[in-house]
Amino acid sequence: MARMAEVLKLVYFIFINFLLLPSSSDGNQRPNFIVMLMDDMGWGDLGVFGEPNKETPNLDRMATDGMLFPDFYSANPICSPSRASLMSGRLPIRNGFYTTNVHAHDAYTPQNIVGGIPENETLIPELLKEVGYKSKIIGKWHLGQQPQFHPLKHGFDEWFGAPNCHFGPYDDKSTPNILYYEEFQIKAGYSNLTQIYIQEGLDFIEKEVANGNPFFLYWTPDATHDPLYASEMFRGTSRRGLYGDAVRELDYGVGQILQKLKDLHVDNNTLVFFSSDNGAATYAKTAGGSNGPFLCGKQTTYEGGSREPTIAWWPGRVKAGQVSHQVGSLMDLYTTMASLSGVAVPKDRVIDGIDLTNVLLTNKEEERPLFYYRGNELMAVRLGKYKAHLWTYTNPLKEFEQGIDFCPGQFIQNLTTHDQVNHTLSPLLIHLARDPGEKYIIKSHTVEYKTAMPRLQAAVAAHRAKLVPGAPQLNWCDRAVMNWAPPGCEKLGKCLKGPQSKPFKCVWPH
Amino acid sequence: MARMAEVLKLVYFIFINFLLLPSSSDGNQRPNFIVMLMDDMGWGDLGVFGEPNKETPNLDRMATDGMLFPDFYSANPICSPSRASLMSGRLPIRNGFYTTNVHAHDAYTPQNIVGGIPENETLIPELLKEVGYKSKIIGKWHLGQQPQFHPLKHGFDEWFGAPNCHFGPYDDKSTPNILYYEEFQIKAGYSNLTQIYIQEGLDFIEKEVANGNPFFLYWTPDATHDPLYASEMFRGTSRRGLYGDAVRELDYGVGQILQKLKDLHVDNNTLVFFSSDNGAATYAKTAGGSNGPFLCGKQTTYEGGSREPTIAWWPGRVKAGQVSHQVGSLMDLYTTMASLSGVAVPKDRVIDGIDLTNVLLTNKEEERPLFYYRGNELMAVRLGKYKAHLWTYTNPLKEFEQGIDFCPGQFIQNLTTHDQVNHTLSPLLIHLARDPGEKYIIKSHTVEYKTAMPRLQAAVAAHRAKLVPGAPQLNWCDRAVMNWAPPGCEKLGKCLKGPQSKPFKCVWPH
Repeated sequence: MARMAEVLKLVYFIFINFLLLPSSSDGNQRPNFIVMLMDDMGWGDLGVFGEPNKETPNLDRMATDGMLFPDFYSANPICSPSRASLMSGRLPIRNGFYTTNVHAHDAYTPQNIVGGIPENETLIPELLKEVGYKSKIIGKWHLGQQPQFHPLKHGFDEWFGAPNCHFGPYDDKSTPNILYYEEFQIKAGYSNLTQIYIQEGLDFIEKEVANGNPFFLYWTPDATHDPLYASEMFRGTSRRGLYGDAVRELDYGVGQILQKLKDLHVDNNTLVFFSSDNGAATYAKTAGGSNGPFLCGKQTTYEGGSREPTIAWWPGRVKAGQVSHQVGSLMDLYTTMASLSGVAVPKDRVIDGIDLTNVLLTNKEEERPLFYYRGNELMAVRLGKYKAHLWTYTNPLKEFEQGIDFCPGQFIQNLTTHDQVNHTLSPLLIHLARDPGEKYIIKSHTVEYKTAMPRLQAAVAAHRAKLVPGAPQLNWCDRAVMNWAPPGCEKLGKCLKGPQSKPFKCVWPH
Repeated sequence: MARMAEVLKLVYFIFINFLLLPSSSDGNQRPNFIVMLMDDMGWGDLGVFGEPNKETPNLDRMATDGMLFPDFYSANPICSPSRASLMSGRLPIRNGFYTTNVHAHDAYTPQNIVGGIPENETLIPELLKEVGYKSKIIGKWHLGQQPQFHPLKHGFDEWFGAPNCHFGPYDDKSTPNILYYEEFQIKAGYSNLTQIYIQEGLDFIEKEVANGNPFFLYWTPDATHDPLYASEMFRGTSRRGLYGDAVRELDYGVGQILQKLKDLHVDNNTLVFFSSDNGAATYAKTAGGSNGPFLCGKQTTYEGGSREPTIAWWPGRVKAGQVSHQVGSLMDLYTTMASLSGVAVPKDRVIDGIDLTNVLLTNKEEERPLFYYRGNELMAVRLGKYKAHLWTYTNPLKEFEQGIDFCPGQFIQNLTTHDQVNHTLSPLLIHLARDPGEKYIIKSHTVEYKTAMPRLQAAVAAHRAKLVPGAPQLNWCDRAVMNWAPPGCEKLGKCLKGPQSKPFKCVWPH
C-alpha cells in the first residue's frame, strides 16, 4: 500500500505538471519570449510576403519553420500608440496614447511631450516579473520622454537603446535629444547600431540562459525608420537601396538570434514573434518600405497602415510551415505571453488582446472584431473578411498638394479622401479576402452589404457600449520636459539648462 | 597495351557522354519538359509571391523545391501574341502576332480571325520532334482559328483542348465556337474541365514514360480566364471567391502532376516551368487576379501587364530553394528547351529567347534587354534594374469613363495616360528594384537618369537596327473562316453553312 501511495503520488505529480505546463512553478518550464518589433517596416517588405527582390532569407526561413500571419495588425498606424498597445494589451483609446487636440489625428511622443505611459497601465514585463522573468528592451521605446515613463520604471530589468527614435540632431543644444546619441551618429546612411543591437540581444540571451531565468527580450531596432541606416557590412548590398540595406541587416540579425537559440538548445522553449509597429511610411517614397498589395500606409486606417508582416516561431511547439488567417493584433502578444507563462492578466480593466495559444498550437481561428483607430476616432472595423470604413481620411489636401502623399500612386474614390468624411450612417464595405487592396467598395443596396453590415455594426455598438476612454496623454507639449540634464550629465560636463515650463497644446498636422 | 586502349576508350566514352549530356543520342537521357502556362493569372496570385490568402500550397512548395523567378516576363501583355512568342521563341513583331490596323493596340485571335501562326515559324514541338520527343498540348492554343494554324499542323503529336479560350456561346449558330464545346459547358462557374485537363496530363506522362519517349507537355488550362470555372470539389472553397477557386484547382493540378513525375521516378529527368501568359485582367475587378505590387495589368506595358509568376522545378538538377533575378522571358523557354534537348535553334532568323541553362543549373545571371511591345509599337525597354517608357498608354478615355479600367485604384501622373503619349525623346525612367510599382519617375536632369538612359537607348537602337517586322497576322477578320463545319460534323448532323467570305479590318478597341 505504501508503494501504491508512492505510485499515486508520482502519477499525481506528473498529472499536475502536465496540467500546469507551461505555467509550472519550475522556472525552466516557462517559455522564453522574444518580440522582434520593426520600425515602419511594411507587410510587403519580406520575401515571404512577396517583396520582389526577395532579400530576407532568414525571415523567409523563419516563416517556413514557423507560422505566418498574413492577417495580423498593429493596434494603431503610428509608432507610439502602437507600441503602448503592444506593451499594455490595450487600445490607445484606453491606455491614453491619443490626442483630443484635434479630431482623428495621429499623435506620438516627440521630445517635448509631457505625457507617457500611465503608471496604472500594467505592462507585459511587469506581469512576467511576477513569475520570475528577466526582461530587456533593446532599441526604441517611445512611450514617453520623461524619466518616469522609461522602461526600467515599467517592468524592464535592462534597457539598451533610446526613449525615442534614434535620430539627430546629435548636438543641437536648443532641442536636446537623448545624451550619448552623439556616440551613435548616423552619417550618410552609415551606422553600426543594428550590429550593436544584435550583439546586445545575443549577450542577453546567453546571460539569462546561463542564469537559468526565463526571459523576455523586446528587440526593437529602428534602422528602417527615417533616418535609415546600415553598417558597412550591409551598406550598398541591397537591390533596393538604403532601405533595403537596413532590411537586409535586420534580417541578418533575426537569423543570428534564432541561431543563438538553437546553439543554446533553448529554441524549443522560446516563442519568437516578428512583426512591425505600423505600416511602411509610403510618404517617404523609395526611402520607405512596401505595403505590398495594400492601400496607403503609416498614419492611415487603410490596410497599408496597420497590416503587419508577422511570423511566430517556436520549434517543437508551433508546427512548421503553417499559415494562420487569424485576425490578430500586436495586443494579442500581451495576453498570449501572459497565458503561456501562467500569469493572469489584470481583471480590473478591458484587455483588448486575445490569447493566441490555441492559434499557435493547434491553428484554430477565433473570430474577433478589429478596431482601426486614428487618434480619438474609431475609423473602421474588421470582422471576418469584411471591413467597414466609418470614417475616411488620408491627410489634409494642403499637405498633399505640398507633396506629402500617404497613398502614392493610389486613389480610390470616396475612400482615400483628404477631408475627414463621416460614413457612419452608411459605412463603406470592403471584402478583404477577394479585395485586399480595398479597391472595390461593395454597394449598399446589395444583399452582401445588407448581410454583412449588421454584424459589423453590432461589433461597433458592443465596443462603444463598453468603452471608457483613458485620459489622453498626447495633448500637451512643453519644452521644459526635454532631455536637458539626463543622468550622468554632470560627470561629463554636458548638463544643459532648460527653459521654464510653458505647456502648450501639441500640434498634430495629420 | 590492349588493356590500356580499352581503358582509354572507356574514359573517352565517359568523357563524351559527360560533355554531351543531356544531348546524348540516347533518347532516355534527354530531359522531359512540362510548360504549365496559366491564363490571365497574375504575378501576385501565388502565395509565394505574396497573395495574402496564401492558397497555393503546391506552387509554394514547387518554388521551395525549385527556382523562383520574380523578374520573369511574357513577351506580350495579351494572350495570343504571348503564346505565339513562347512557341516560336520570337517577339510578336517578328512572328506576325500584331496588328497595324491601329497604332499600339492589342490584338489576338478571335473566332473570325483570318491569320494565325505562320507556316515558316518553327515552333518548339517541331524542333523537339527532330530529336525524338512526343509533344502534347492540353488546353488553350490561341494561335489561329483556321485548321492550318492548329497544333497538330505545328509539331504537336496530340492535342486535347480548344483553339481559342473555352467560352460560350455553346450553341449559338450565328457565331459558332468550336464544336463539342457544348459537351463542356460552364454553368454558374461550375465546370469539370480543369479536372479533365489534369487527368489528360497524367495519362500522357504515364504513356510516354511507359513508351520510353522523351516528352514535351504544354499544359495550358484556362480556368482563370473569363469565364472563370472550377469543379464541384473546388467551387466555393477559396477565401477569394470563384477566381480563387480556379486558382486552387490549378494549384492542385500542379501538385498532381509533380507527384506523378515522382511516382514514375522521372522527376530527376523532367524540367517543369510554371508561368502565365500575361498579367492579371485587372479590368475584371474581383473576377480577375492580382498583380501584387505592380502597376496596371493585362493589355498594358506596365509591370502588371507582363510580369509573370514563374517557377522552374527539376529535382537533382535545379537546386532547391533558389531565387533568380534573371530578367527572363517566356521566349527563353524555347531556346532553353532546345539547348537542353541538344537541338539547334533556327539560324536563319532572329531568336529573341536566350538559353537559361546556366541560370537554371548554376544560378548565373545574364544581362539582356527586355522589350515591351503593344501591337506594332515598342512601348518600353528594361535593362538591368532600369525600365524606360518610350510610349505610355492605358486605354482610351472614352472606354475608361464607361468603366473599363486597366489600372483600378492606381494613377501615376504622365505614366498611366489615356492618350498614347510619345516620350521617345525623353523616356520616363523607373528603377524597378526600389520602385517595383513604377510610382516614382526619375527626373531627367539627375545624374542617375543621365547615367542609365544612354544604355537603355543603345539597347533600343540595336534592337531597331536589326528589326524586320513579320507580316501582321491580326489585321483581317472574316466571318466565313469561323468554325461552321468542323471535322466530324457530318456524323453528328451538326454542320452549319457559313456566309460568303467578306474580309474586313478587325476592330481592336484598346
